[in-house]
Parts: sequence; structure tokens; C-alpha cells
Amino acid sequence: MKICAEDKLLNGLLRLVPVTQNQPLGPGDDCAAIKGGKPGTLILLKTDCIAEDVHFLRSHDPAKVGWKALCRPLSDIAAMGGTPTEALITFFSPPDLDSAYWKKFYRGLGRAARRFGVTIAGGEMSRQKSGIAVSVMLTGQINSKHLLTRAGGNPGDILFVTGQLGGSIAGHHLKFIPRLEEGRWLAKNIHPSAMMDISDGLGADLPRLARASGCGFKVDYAKIPSRKGFDIRAALSDGEDYELLLAVPPAQAVLLRKKWPTAFPKTRLTEIGSLTPPRPAPTDWPSGWDHFEIK
Amino acid sequence: MKICAEDKLLNGLLRLVPVTQNQPLGPGDDCAAIKGGKPGTLILLKTDCIAEDVHFLRSHDPAKVGWKALCRPLSDIAAMGGTPTEALITFFSPPDLDSAYWKKFYRGLGRAARRFGVTIAGGEMSRQKSGIAVSVMLTGQINSKHLLTRAGGNPGDILFVTGQLGGSIAGHHLKFIPRLEEGRWLAKNIHPSAMMDISDGLGADLPRLARASGCGFKVDYAKIPSRKGFDIRAALSDGEDYELLLAVPPAQAVLLRKKWPTAFPKTRLTEIGSLTPPRPAPTDWPSGWDHFEIK
Repeated sequence: MKICAEDKLLNGLLRLVPVTQNQPLGPGDDCAAIKGGKPGTLILLKTDCIAEDVHFLRSHDPAKVGWKALCRPLSDIAAMGGTPTEALITFFSPPDLDSAYWKKFYRGLGRAARRFGVTIAGGEMSRQKSGIAVSVMLTGQINSKHLLTRAGGNPGDILFVTGQLGGSIAGHHLKFIPRLEEGRWLAKNIHPSAMMDISDGLGADLPRLARASGCGFKVDYAKIPSRKGFDIRAALSDGEDYELLLAVPPAQAVLLRKKWPTAFPKTRLTEIGSLTPPRPAPTDWPSGWDHFEIK
Repeated sequence: MKICAEDKLLNGLLRLVPVTQNQPLGPGDDCAAIKGGKPGTLILLKTDCIAEDVHFLRSHDPAKVGWKALCRPLSDIAAMGGTPTEALITFFSPPDLDSAYWKKFYRGLGRAARRFGVTIAGGEMSRQKSGIAVSVMLTGQINSKHLLTRAGGNPGDILFVTGQLGGSIAGHHLKFIPRLEEGRWLAKNIHPSAMMDISDGLGADLPRLARASGCGFKVDYAKIPSRKGFDIRAALSDGEDYELLLAVPPAQAVLLRKKWPTAFPKTRLTEIGSLTPPRPAPTDWPSGWDHFEIK
């Protein structure tokens, strides 16, 4: 199964540093999870970043960019089934940008923070010679028995995705709603065997979930819910969907199909395939978005 | 008293977002401190960043840059009297940089992590169009009764600094040792009324501590411990010292003067002045390093 250049580089780098061991979850999942919270509770840690011309353009409304900056790591908290708590914001500001930009940016970020119950605990700023870049540090919490990782899937588990995939660049990537409610509901009521958010495209992210679970996968291409005006290829490869991908044991899948329409009447949930014993990805499987492969 | 452009911008931006309220410590100190840990323990949160041509050059040894990237926020944990725990690393990589750079960088960062007891819980990477930038998210912990903030100083408290100030650019900024041991010892044995790390120069940082404590300050310029080959002006304004600045009530200062030489025979501790009732800074007081004022 293909491993992205980005995953490979990060894995290589992690061999050079001491890595969290005595905690439930170190690097490699959507968030890290550490002990040290109230008994029965885990603290979730996430860092995420956006850079000009990679994740947004200078011409985009700064308030929407601020919304996106916070909602991206919120999507990772959602994928664990968790509840976000505190954020710290770091931004790199180029010489050709003034403070008016950051005020608009913070206004959008603040809107997201209020809507999703996050408070801002601090931050840091620096000049840099060119381009805007932002890094967001986010903490969350979760009842330890509800924690959903990428690693628990088994052959035969049914694969579901929320929402629609592909074509995010047309606007979705600046205004998406992180699936926090859905994530928490799933963790509490269904407890999928594995879950993650789709941020680099199903083509890159499904192999990650399968690999972490020690499984292969099969997908019915015809079932992939591509956004109107975009094809299956786009749905697999575009990235920035910020939807949930989950694996559910067949018995739980019955319950999920029954309860979902009442719980989330406005959010589509689509069965796209299942996990299998380990095997290579289909030969026509695309690699998805990879920061170090695709220009 | 002068407020830096950077402080002013950050304060303005924080009015636009929901800010941590029900926690011991939100934005504005060296770290945030949140509840949610074991009873009697606080979780410290810190984010910090470095950018090429601002905090380091491409020609600097990447391992030293990695050391610096982690040791900067470690210095903030030290300033609270805390113990670091987990780090998450975000880096922005320009097109003209290959993975060899990041391997060297992580090797240096790993050296610092092992030496100071930090484990790496995760991270994120992104391309950006030009320049290297790194953001480090760091957690720590502290017994809540040992927490040292900037805000507890009172008129008459004696001001001390560790080490030597100024001229960091000659090499210190790439190889400094964060004052974690000293910080913990001070928190436990002396409990200064206020403490912070000097990262933007005493000229910028002392007014911050005084302001947070609702005080003014007086300093005997002749006593400021400037690094060999650098003058008082450099000691006040250069920045990147990563030393501790502390205010100590007179009775505790007696104890500190007595115990310090045995506890830290190799680390200089200098009495430089005292806190006063609120009053303007001396007219010849420099503003220190300010990312948005000084080119």
C-alpha cells in the first residue's frame, strides 16, 4: 500500500526524537491523547497549520481564512469523538501585511471559537520575509472509553463517510463546519472501530486508516458521494473535505443506519465499502493530496 | 509606560475572540495555565515560533536551529517554575529545501527533548512559498501552589536576573540552556512574587513584568550583567537572552542571596534594581526588541 512522501518524511523524523510512549496515543493519529486529566478523561492535543498559496490566497476574505485556521484542527478533534477546549494561535506575518489583516482574521477565528466552544489561551507572532502562515495549537478532552482512533478497524467493518467529497476548492474549504456534533454522537452511540477526518482526500486518507488498522480495503467507486459538478476522481483526490471516515462492525452498522437519519437529518452518511484483510490498494487508486509530491 | 506595538496588536486581536476566563491564567503571561490536570496540578500550554531571517539564517546548522526551536518555549515553561511534558512540532517548508534539512533539524530538537525530558506527541508540516518557519506547541505541568506569573510583584520587591544579557546573536541564541532547573528551584524554595523569561530584551520585558504587577521599576544600569564585549545598551535591547527575570520580596531576597551560590554555583544571579509604585519608565529606557517596530 502506498505511503505518502509526507507520512514517510514525518515517520523518519520521528525516529530522531523521543516520542510519547507512556500515553494512550502519540504521533500518527488525528490528535495525540495524553493522561493527566481528571480520572477517566484524556486530554487531546493537536497542532495544525495553513500557509498562503497552499491553503488559502491573499485575495480570500481574511475572516474566512481565520475560520478555516481554527476549523481544520477542530475537524481532528471531531474525528477522535472529542470536545475542543483551548486554542493558542501562532502567526507569521510578512512585511507587506498590516494589522488590519490580522484583525479581520481574528474576527473570523473568533466566530468559529464561539460557535464551537473554544477559548483562546494565548499565542505568538513573528515576522517572516514573505507569505502568511498560521499554526493553531488546540486542546480537547474526551472520556477515555469514547476515544476513537484510526487503529481499531477489522476486516469486514463497513466504511462510511459523512457529507460530500471533492471540489472543496470551489468554496467549501473556507466555510466548512467541523463534524464535532457528529463525532461526539458517533463516539457515544455507535463507537466505530476506527475513525478519522478526511483532510487530504479519501484517496490518501482511507489507506492511512486501513494501514493503521492492519487491514486492506475495498470501495465501490459508484457509491462515493462526490460533490455536485465534480467527479469521482475529484472526490478521491481533491482534499480539504473535512468529513468523517469511519469503520463500523456490521452489527453496529445496522444501528447506525437506523439512528443516523433522526440524529442528523441534514447530514448525508454514505456506505462506500468495507475493510478487508491486508492487501494492496486497487491499482487505479489515486494517491490523494500530498504536500511533498503535488505542486 | 511604553507598550510595544506587538503587545498592542495582540491585545487588540484578543478582543475579537473568546478568551480563556475560568482558568488560572489566560493570554499575556509566558504560558497559559489550565485546570483539568490531577488535583493540585495545572497544565501549562505554550506556543512559540521561529522564522528564517528573523530568528535564524539558512546558513546556521539546522541541528542548532532545532535545538533553539524547542528551547525557546522551554524557557517559558522555566519562567513559570514548571516541568515540560509534551511537544508538537509544526513546520513550513519552502520549495528550495529538502528533507535532509529537517532530519538535521529534528536531530537537534531531539537532543534538546531528551535532555529536558520532553516527548514529541505529534506535529504537522506544510509547504510554503518561501522561507522556513517552525511553530512548537508545548505542554507542561506544575503544582498549582508553585505557579509563578508576571503579575504578583509589589513595590519594594528586589529585581534579579540570571546569567548575562546582550550579544546573544554572537552564538548564545543557538545553544542556550533554558533555565528549567533554576525556575523549578526558585518556585519551590523562594517563590518569587513575579517571574518571566527575558526573550525580547530586558528593555522590553521588565516593563511587561512591572505593568502586569501594577508597578513601576528602577534599575541601576551599572549593575546590569552585560555579556563580555557588549555594552549596557546591548544588554537592554538585543533580546534572545532566555534568562530569568524575577521580583522577590526583601525578606525572601535574603534567603535567595544565601542559598543561590550553593544551589547554582555556575549560574550568575544579579540584583539589578527593584519594583516601585507605578510610574513612567526612565526617559532613556530603550524599547527592546519588537517584531513589528524594528526591522
